[in-house]
Amino acid sequence: MRIRLSLLSLCLAAALVRLHAPIPVFAQVDPLPAWNESAAKRAILTFVQATTDQANRDFVPPADRIATFDQDGTLWVEHPMYTQVVYCLDRVPALVRAQPELANVEPFKTVMTGNLEAIAKLPMLELQKILVATLTGMSVDQFQTQVKLWIDSARDRRWKRPYTDLMYEPMTEVLNFMRAKGYRTYIVTGGGQDFVRAYAGNTYGIPPEQVVGTAGATKFEYGENGEPLLVKAPKLLLNDNNAGKPEGIHLMIGRRPYAAFGNSTGDRQMLEYTKAGKGRRLAMLILHDDAAREYAYGPAQGLPETKVGTFTQALYNEAKKDGWVVVSMKNDWNRIFAFER
Amino acid sequence: MRIRLSLLSLCLAAALVRLHAPIPVFAQVDPLPAWNESAAKRAILTFVQATTDQANRDFVPPADRIATFDQDGTLWVEHPMYTQVVYCLDRVPALVRAQPELANVEPFKTVMTGNLEAIAKLPMLELQKILVATLTGMSVDQFQTQVKLWIDSARDRRWKRPYTDLMYEPMTEVLNFMRAKGYRTYIVTGGGQDFVRAYAGNTYGIPPEQVVGTAGATKFEYGENGEPLLVKAPKLLLNDNNAGKPEGIHLMIGRRPYAAFGNSTGDRQMLEYTKAGKGRRLAMLILHDDAAREYAYGPAQGLPETKVGTFTQALYNEAKKDGWVVVSMKNDWNRIFAFER
Repeated sequence: MRIRLSLLSLCLAAALVRLHAPIPVFAQVDPLPAWNESAAKRAILTFVQATTDQANRDFVPPADRIATFDQDGTLWVEHPMYTQVVYCLDRVPALVRAQPELANVEPFKTVMTGNLEAIAKLPMLELQKILVATLTGMSVDQFQTQVKLWIDSARDRRWKRPYTDLMYEPMTEVLNFMRAKGYRTYIVTGGGQDFVRAYAGNTYGIPPEQVVGTAGATKFEYGENGEPLLVKAPKLLLNDNNAGKPEGIHLMIGRRPYAAFGNSTGDRQMLEYTKAGKGRRLAMLILHDDAAREYAYGPAQGLPETKVGTFTQALYNEAKKDGWVVVSMKNDWNRIFAFER
Repeated sequence: MRIRLSLLSLCLAAALVRLHAPIPVFAQVDPLPAWNESAAKRAILTFVQATTDQANRDFVPPADRIATFDQDGTLWVEHPMYTQVVYCLDRVPALVRAQPELANVEPFKTVMTGNLEAIAKLPMLELQKILVATLTGMSVDQFQTQVKLWIDSARDRRWKRPYTDLMYEPMTEVLNFMRAKGYRTYIVTGGGQDFVRAYAGNTYGIPPEQVVGTAGATKFEYGENGEPLLVKAPKLLLNDNNAGKPEGIHLMIGRRPYAAFGNSTGDRQMLEYTKAGKGRRLAMLILHDDAAREYAYGPAQGLPETKVGTFTQALYNEAKKDGWVVVSMKNDWNRIFAFER
């Protein structure tokens, strides 16, 4: 009898605790804690809730749950220079060591001085020579190794951290949240497809087959021991920018996304294509308006255009007109980088 | 007591049954019943067992489990004409109805006669005009609709059945078995990527993003009501045959397959690339040597080459030398089509 009474009082005590204390076990954990409680956050939560709830008229079957994300300026920092451009410039000394005659040839000569102002002034055609020299001519396996070694050792100039630390914590949360709800998350980037694939797995949890990017041809060859090789060739197959983004999405995925995220005019057609699909769709643009914690640029804020992806006034107007969600980094994000924690 | 005794005798009886009768509940269900008990079947079972058993030295993590399948002649019948060629010819009357002046212009004039011998003699350049006229110029959504309507109504001439009935039952079993073991199954076809995507889901259980094929460019445009459209353009991006197969695999998947299945010289480089990867890999070639139940063709059997994919003697020799598995349709498959059941 004593035992029974003890059990009863334990149960009662437990019930009282549940009545008076917060009930963390039953409360829903906030999937987007780095987002302030704003319209942008509500737009994401509402969209994902509606499209993954079988009782909702906007329900989307799991196989069709595709979300596409621009990379530079949307998932991580793109200023003052795209990370891939830094990579290509950083590769030049190794190139010159292998072919010393390049030291006296432009554009390699200027790059070897390390003078960033002079490098920034190189004409586009000269820059292309650097891209061709550092991104083609090797096997795809060699290239993966080169990029992985670099990404592990390179540090950005402002934060003195690996570039992979510069992904936006709020966007990591969106990737994880959407994946947890059955969405497949794709990167759709103007950057090099093979370049981004080299770190997308570790950095974003995105496998190579879910990276759509600017892609060059490869050439099937046989190596010295007769082994089959795929060698990166200087021939452009897909320029994955502007109209190239929906075209690349069709080529690589073959389905129209239900959600798309970008930050510049290069993402416009992807967002238009996404939003024009039947049923509920989500189109989001990240506005870089936080000079203190990150950067502020783009005419949409009365700031000058820059060499990197730009959020023009026309893009801003289209977003407002067509119901795209504009995310203010300053107002909508309470934390920008994971290392701020 | 009576009840207890009855239970005991029931248990004893059950035990006796288990000792003397076959034990279907405990035996493993054969995942490949349309395959005879041969070396080819054992090769598949052993490969899948080894690469999916965590204790095995050839274990492959689930994310890397990629298997690629040629379509025509590997998953379904390719003789006497690729299904997509039949589709293009069948589309010509609709084209001529829309543009009556074509009725007097070659190659449309010859196609409209329905004379298969004359059509077969059309030069390649004339045939290309038919491909361009029937595979480009429309939006990707319109094209999907056109192919789906056709695939539902067209019948092949020999079996008087839908083309999708002509998939090989043993290969359906391989697709299902490998998927059940965590492999992602990709089609890697010389056929049109958008064409195959239109039915691959219903036919093979393969989603659009897992169809790699010969791909044309699309052009992003705005329709009459300003809606974004992707229009199929007459520009080849990827010729997914021969060296184009591993190149297409790298472009669309970015991983080397662990298993690859083909049936002709067009699959050679894909099989070489697959087999050259580290660890255990599986390369298989289907040999069409069953004139009674399907077709017999190719020099590897002393038969003449045909216009469709060919299993040459050189390919046969390479397979034997490099440990690829050659599947005899006649000897290794006890059933070819599901409708034979």
